[in-house]
This record gives sequence, structure tokens and C-alpha cells, in this order.
Amino acid sequence: MTRKELVDNIFRKRSFLCVGLDPDIDKIPRHLLTQEDPIYEFNRQIIDATAPYAVAYKPNLAFYESMGGEGWISFEKTVAYIRDRYPDQFIIADAKRGDIGNTSAMYAKSFFGHLDVDALTVAPYMGEDSVTPFLGFPGKWVILLALTSNKGSRDFQFIKNEQGKSLFEIVIEKSREWGGKDEMMYVVGATQGTMFKNIRQVAPDSFLLVPGVGAQGGSLEEVARYGMIGDCGLLVNSSRGIIYAATDETFAEKAASEAKKLRDQMDSLLKLYTEK
Amino acid sequence: MTRKELVDNIFRKRSFLCVGLDPDIDKIPRHLLTQEDPIYEFNRQIIDATAPYAVAYKPNLAFYESMGGEGWISFEKTVAYIRDRYPDQFIIADAKRGDIGNTSAMYAKSFFGHLDVDALTVAPYMGEDSVTPFLGFPGKWVILLALTSNKGSRDFQFIKNEQGKSLFEIVIEKSREWGGKDEMMYVVGATQGTMFKNIRQVAPDSFLLVPGVGAQGGSLEEVARYGMIGDCGLLVNSSRGIIYAATDETFAEKAASEAKKLRDQMDSLLKLYTEK
Repeated sequence: MTRKELVDNIFRKRSFLCVGLDPDIDKIPRHLLTQEDPIYEFNRQIIDATAPYAVAYKPNLAFYESMGGEGWISFEKTVAYIRDRYPDQFIIADAKRGDIGNTSAMYAKSFFGHLDVDALTVAPYMGEDSVTPFLGFPGKWVILLALTSNKGSRDFQFIKNEQGKSLFEIVIEKSREWGGKDEMMYVVGATQGTMFKNIRQVAPDSFLLVPGVGAQGGSLEEVARYGMIGDCGLLVNSSRGIIYAATDETFAEKAASEAKKLRDQMDSLLKLYTEK
Repeated sequence: MTRKELVDNIFRKRSFLCVGLDPDIDKIPRHLLTQEDPIYEFNRQIIDATAPYAVAYKPNLAFYESMGGEGWISFEKTVAYIRDRYPDQFIIADAKRGDIGNTSAMYAKSFFGHLDVDALTVAPYMGEDSVTPFLGFPGKWVILLALTSNKGSRDFQFIKNEQGKSLFEIVIEKSREWGGKDEMMYVVGATQGTMFKNIRQVAPDSFLLVPGVGAQGGSLEEVARYGMIGDCGLLVNSSRGIIYAATDETFAEKAASEAKKLRDQMDSLLKLYTEK
């Protein structure tokens, strides 16, 4: 999906919501366990319920891989379902990959070829040749970890070099030499609200994928105030707050209602900060 | 596997060789393609041929995931085969994972529970809570990326903080507060030969997993001279140089011969630098 298509979807649906599909077999509603593939069935119902309010879905691979080969199949079926039924949804494989060149090339083949997702999250630690194999696929995106939403983000991401720049700023600056604003986004945690000002100094025109709203405590209003740009430039992810809004037979209905609440807030924020 | 067991295997077999199982369907011998699971069959024959000369196997997950759910099954079968036939081999899932706490916990469950590998490679960018969920499993190891073997390692890993310490040194120092020398190793590329001196200043007693010998051009002799400690403290990985030594029907035999060459060199280096 191109940037223009993504932006059109955002303003048409008045939403920059990404729903995180992080299903845990121990947490999904009990009545689904009799299904042949409970994880897929859970996802399918969550997707059908939330699609009117979302522009993107982000399955986190860890949750699928923890179930081995079967989990991979649930993941693949989920991606195929979204592709087929909701072709206007942006699909992010949250895989946080990053390896030496020939290995990253294998991952690129897997995710952009075989699975046909729109974007893949990538860890920056190994540098340029671990990232560039993912670039150059038309309409496909790399989403590079910059400033994450977790407590451990303080351990290395704020290390300052001799010029006073933080590692996350260096990662953004350097990676902008590898790929432009139409093929690279950055992960910036919502829990880092005021840091969005710094981010926008180094990435004024990039899309940011923002986890950490909801269960992790980030503020949507703060993210929009400091992070929103003219064409929105934000995808805000919520996982647990939506998919586990209820764990009985009403789970899909409650997920829709939580997604709608976020969409309504997002609508107001789009009016406030983009004047559209 | 405990450190003592690993070290006993190294000195008994006179080898600190780790064989990288990175099978690529486009590169494996053509005659295997008629098998039901060619990747597994390739691995099985490589393992049988090289087991006398190796102490560890390291399947790189990227190569399996690029084949989707089927690839995962080949990976699982490979791990199960080694577990069953060669219980004295140390199995490293080269996955380079690292995510927020609850997600890392899912990965830990997958790799140490379900799959029962001995070690998992982890990327440090997200800090403590992305690493510690992998610790505390008796006999299981985290292998943290410190200084990688690729060209892109120059992009971020050598960034110096205000005290003149490089990021890779900070990663090692900081992570030693999370896990000790009996449950944490570090990835240090063989292509960084002389840097092993610096590494041994911050990690004098840790095991290092060393990729980059062979196809990537690192020197085994240099790695041993600067990196070896009293109980060896090294696992040196070779992938392409062994598994693709030949691509016809002699592939397993040629792989054995390459592995034996490395083992013979390792035997001499153990004598030279450990006096055992």
C-alpha cells in the first residue's frame, strides 16, 4: 500500500487505529476452544467487528510462533483473511527481525513475497545491511524500532554520543539515508509522549507506528498533539485494550465498541491537528 | 545444558565448532528435492556427517520461516532429531528475538518450553525487560547480540557515549547485571578479530558465539588468540563453508571433511591457548 492510499484511508475512515492481533490461547474466550483453529477464529471475529474503525492490523509474530508450526498457519490464514475481505487494511507483521544481509533477504522473501503483508517491523541494531534487503519492494514498508514503549527502552536507546544525540535519534537520522518517507516508518512508543517533539525534529515527515496506548498507559491526546503532521503521519496501535475488552461471548461486540471509542477520539484529533 | 557440560564436551571432542543449519531450498542438492521434506533430509544428513566434529548446531530461523508453516515444521523436526540422536549437542535457535516483556515471555515459552533448545539469540535494542524473560530457565542460555559480523555493525554498535564507551561494550556491561556467565553468552563476529581484546575486558569469563569464520572472512586463529579463555569460552560457527561445501551427492561427506578440518585446527588452538 502506498502512502497516498494509506492517508486516503485514514481521512475517509477518520481513524488512524491499528489493531494489534496478539492472541494468547490462555486468554481468548473459552467457547472458541472447540473450533478447529481457535486462534484464527478469534482473529476473524475481532477483524470483522473492528474493521469499520481501523485502518491497519498488526499481528505480533511472537504470539503465533509460541504455538509452533500450527501457530504459523493461524498467522498465515489471518493475513490471507484480511487481504481477501478487507483489501484496504494495512497489514503489519510485527516480527522485529534484523539479521545479516543474506538472512534479511530470506525474511523479505517470506514476508513481502509469500505472505504479502504491507509492512514488517525491523530491529536496527545490526545496521544498514540488515535493513536494506527489506527496501525497494513497491508499496512495502520497513518499520524500524526507534524509541520503544517499554521500560527497557531506557537502557540503550537514550545513550548519548559525543555530540549529545541519543541512539534513537541517530537510528532515525542514519536510516533516512537508506529509505525515504514513502517506504520507512518508525516505532515510537506512546509512553514516551513528550519525546515526540524530538522525534519530529529528526523525522518531520515520516509515519510513526505508536504502540503503548491503553494497557501500557500512553496518552492518545499527547501522541497526537506532539506527533501528528499534515497527512496524519501516525498509526496508533491498541492490542489488549481491544481484543480482550471482554473474554466471554460478547468479546467481538466489546472489541468493536472499544475500537469505535478510539476512532471517535481520533476523528476529533484529526480535526484539531490537521484541520481536515 | 550447563556450562560445565558444554566445556566437558568441548575438551572431550577437541572442538568448539558450531554448525550453522541455514538451509536454502535453492541451494541444497537437487537430488533431495524428491524427498517429502527436503530441508529436514538435508539437515539430517549434515548432522549425521558432522556430529563427530561439532559441539553445537545453530539453525537460523529466518531460513525456515521464509518457507512459512512448512518451514517451521522442518525446523522443529530438526531440533527433535538432534535432541534424540545427539543429546550432547548444544542447540542454538538463532532467532534474534527481543520484544516487550509479555511478548518475550511468549518466545521463551516457545523456544525453551515447546522446542527445548539450549539457547536463543536475542537482540538487545529494547533493553532489560525484553531480555530477562529468557533468563532463569535452568540449563538454558540467552545469547545477546553484542558486536555482529556484518558491515552494518559499524552503523550503531560503535557509537561512543560521553565516557568513550562503545554501544557494544555498554550492552555487555549492562546485561551482565541481568544474567551471569552461566546463562548469558554474547555474539561477537569473527570479522572483528582484534576487537576480541576489548570484549575480553568487559566480558572476561563469558562464552562468546562467533559467527563469520569462512564465507564471511574471519580468522579462526585470530579469534582464538584474542578471545579464548581457560575453559575455552568460544563457540565458533560455520554455516555456508560446511553445509554447501559440495552441492552434489557428496555434500554430506564434503561437509564432514570441512568440519573435520576446523576441528583439527581447533584442537591445536585449544592446546596452544588453554594448555589442556
